[in-house]
Amino acid sequence: MKNIAVFGSTGSIGKQTLSVCRSHKELFSVYSIVFGSSAELGAEQIVEFDPKIVGVFDEKAAAQIRRLFPNKHVVSGPEVWDIAAYDEIDTVVNGVSGFDGTFPLLKALEAGKTVALANKESVVCAGGLVRDAIKRGGGRILPVDSEQSAIFQCLASGRREDVKSLILTASGGAFRDLSAEELKNVTPEMAMKHPTWSMGRKITIDSATLFNKGLEVMEAAFLFDAGADDIRVLVHPQSVVHSMVEFKDNSVIAQLSVPDMRLAIQYAMTYPERLACPAEELDLASLSGLTFKEPDNERFPAIGMAYEALRAGGAFPTAYNSGNEEAVKAFINRRIGFNGIADCVRYVMDNMCGACITDTASLLDCDAEARRLAAEYLNKR
Amino acid sequence: MKNIAVFGSTGSIGKQTLSVCRSHKELFSVYSIVFGSSAELGAEQIVEFDPKIVGVFDEKAAAQIRRLFPNKHVVSGPEVWDIAAYDEIDTVVNGVSGFDGTFPLLKALEAGKTVALANKESVVCAGGLVRDAIKRGGGRILPVDSEQSAIFQCLASGRREDVKSLILTASGGAFRDLSAEELKNVTPEMAMKHPTWSMGRKITIDSATLFNKGLEVMEAAFLFDAGADDIRVLVHPQSVVHSMVEFKDNSVIAQLSVPDMRLAIQYAMTYPERLACPAEELDLASLSGLTFKEPDNERFPAIGMAYEALRAGGAFPTAYNSGNEEAVKAFINRRIGFNGIADCVRYVMDNMCGACITDTASLLDCDAEARRLAAEYLNKR
Repeated sequence: MKNIAVFGSTGSIGKQTLSVCRSHKELFSVYSIVFGSSAELGAEQIVEFDPKIVGVFDEKAAAQIRRLFPNKHVVSGPEVWDIAAYDEIDTVVNGVSGFDGTFPLLKALEAGKTVALANKESVVCAGGLVRDAIKRGGGRILPVDSEQSAIFQCLASGRREDVKSLILTASGGAFRDLSAEELKNVTPEMAMKHPTWSMGRKITIDSATLFNKGLEVMEAAFLFDAGADDIRVLVHPQSVVHSMVEFKDNSVIAQLSVPDMRLAIQYAMTYPERLACPAEELDLASLSGLTFKEPDNERFPAIGMAYEALRAGGAFPTAYNSGNEEAVKAFINRRIGFNGIADCVRYVMDNMCGACITDTASLLDCDAEARRLAAEYLNKR
Repeated sequence: MKNIAVFGSTGSIGKQTLSVCRSHKELFSVYSIVFGSSAELGAEQIVEFDPKIVGVFDEKAAAQIRRLFPNKHVVSGPEVWDIAAYDEIDTVVNGVSGFDGTFPLLKALEAGKTVALANKESVVCAGGLVRDAIKRGGGRILPVDSEQSAIFQCLASGRREDVKSLILTASGGAFRDLSAEELKNVTPEMAMKHPTWSMGRKITIDSATLFNKGLEVMEAAFLFDAGADDIRVLVHPQSVVHSMVEFKDNSVIAQLSVPDMRLAIQYAMTYPERLACPAEELDLASLSGLTFKEPDNERFPAIGMAYEALRAGGAFPTAYNSGNEEAVKAFINRRIGFNGIADCVRYVMDNMCGACITDTASLLDCDAEARRLAAEYLNKR
């Protein structure tokens, strides 16, 4: 029996992780759930899974949970991140959204845990710190992002030194067929509908702008120790091939499945074993018209900027990520249009100083500086 | 430096094997070439690769070669099969066409060699004997057939016990879009043009009838120790995905490349390493419209009969294979039409007795019986 801690339990990844736990009660015990403020759903999860420890970041929501479950051990505020290091936990599923996902990741790795990582911002912004934490604590990361999981699975088919390139596929987002002019009029409501994946709000907008794919380029570079030149992105609107690995001999290994996150989540939880999965079988015989093409960097500058940030290193990946986080909020609040998101990140990257991230303090400084620059851009408009 | 023996050197696989050797002179030394009767091409190969031993099955062709190369060690007649066991050889590439491929395979395995196996008839007809030879001699088989190589590569991505099914792709043959009526009028000339692969004559016709795919179903069952229920066939006219493996969790791993046999040949020769390959890079960004569908067992009964033969075991795979070999000859000689090939094999299988193959003698008996039944069918017409 594996003790699982689910960070971000009320979010999209968290709910799907609990669905996997529900399908394999003989294997997984939900030791802890941690969520932000969704007390109602959190309460339901507590009733169903009876976790030993509950973490609620928001103090008001924590108070609610304490009232509802007076005998439950409830942790609140920033101390919830510490749960990732609790002795009894075997695997931490990190489904926290955005930059905050860095905290439980570092804690878990320093405590030698296996982390099933859905949060990409952490390794993008704090790659060096994450590497240090792994060295110190001996933890390991197994990717949950469907593209990274695909690459992880495909890499197993050969020797690492024989790999020529990692090929991330992208659905191309909800607006892959709109002109630059039409993109100007995209509303947050439009951007929140993803053609193939059912995901959280932030990541759905990031999929539409392709910032999600840009973050994945940097995530892949970290996870698989690859250089910018070794990673490619191809638009594959059908979302059947989740990514590929090209080897030196020009053999390409691809991973295919229905677009269901539970497959990647479960694989990270059971690796190297595979189990029957709630994700449906792929109906291969009905697949028709799988296509692949180069992304359009003119209309969607997010991927090009990601390569730039990856090559520049230092504070630039953080500038890219945190600038984007602020820009997405401004887009949701209708302060900027769809194309303004990339413009805002461009501004942040152009004005970011080239600091190094050597510890959590400098990481937080860089993050703050990126957000300040984003605010500066937004206020200028 | 690996010493390579190329069986069937003047055939399609042989020529491509020598092309791989040509690209990696630092790694492969052509210790021996063995061919049937193509003295002219064989002589060119001797000049280029200067093999220590030359095997020529046909005595007349052997005499020609002996005249041309008086100082060369030339073996002729059935003794050529013994070359597969010569001490100095590391890897035997078995590109012999048809049933005869069984002889060098058994010799090589009994001598503990690695065999890069392109010949499928051997493991289809003599699976049990091949298994015994491996047990006795410690040799091993690495698949060269592009579909089996694809499955071999995909299997590496997970644990064998977590595999749900092996999925062989089929181009569907040159006549995949013809009606049953139109198939009646197919000529040998039409059948010898394959839409995607450049191969030998027998295998090109087998591709058109789908007997090649039927043989591959049985070959896969042998190579990967799989049951009939664990193997599927899907028609994929683009010949980009060369086969797939579906795991228990519904994750599918696929191997893609340009249709160039040199990739699979080279991988079998360098495994587990991969090297730059003369096969071109797959232009993924230009792939459009990859499709997959169930084969049509009405118009192409070959696959259904292969499952039947595989389930029945014993002499039936030999009946299937040798019946088909005779039928293809009759088709080439215009004694029967295209649909007559499957009818002939049906007749052979329906009239075959259920003998067991326990040694080479009983294998040869079964083979002879199958060919006798095929002749009976052909004479009745």
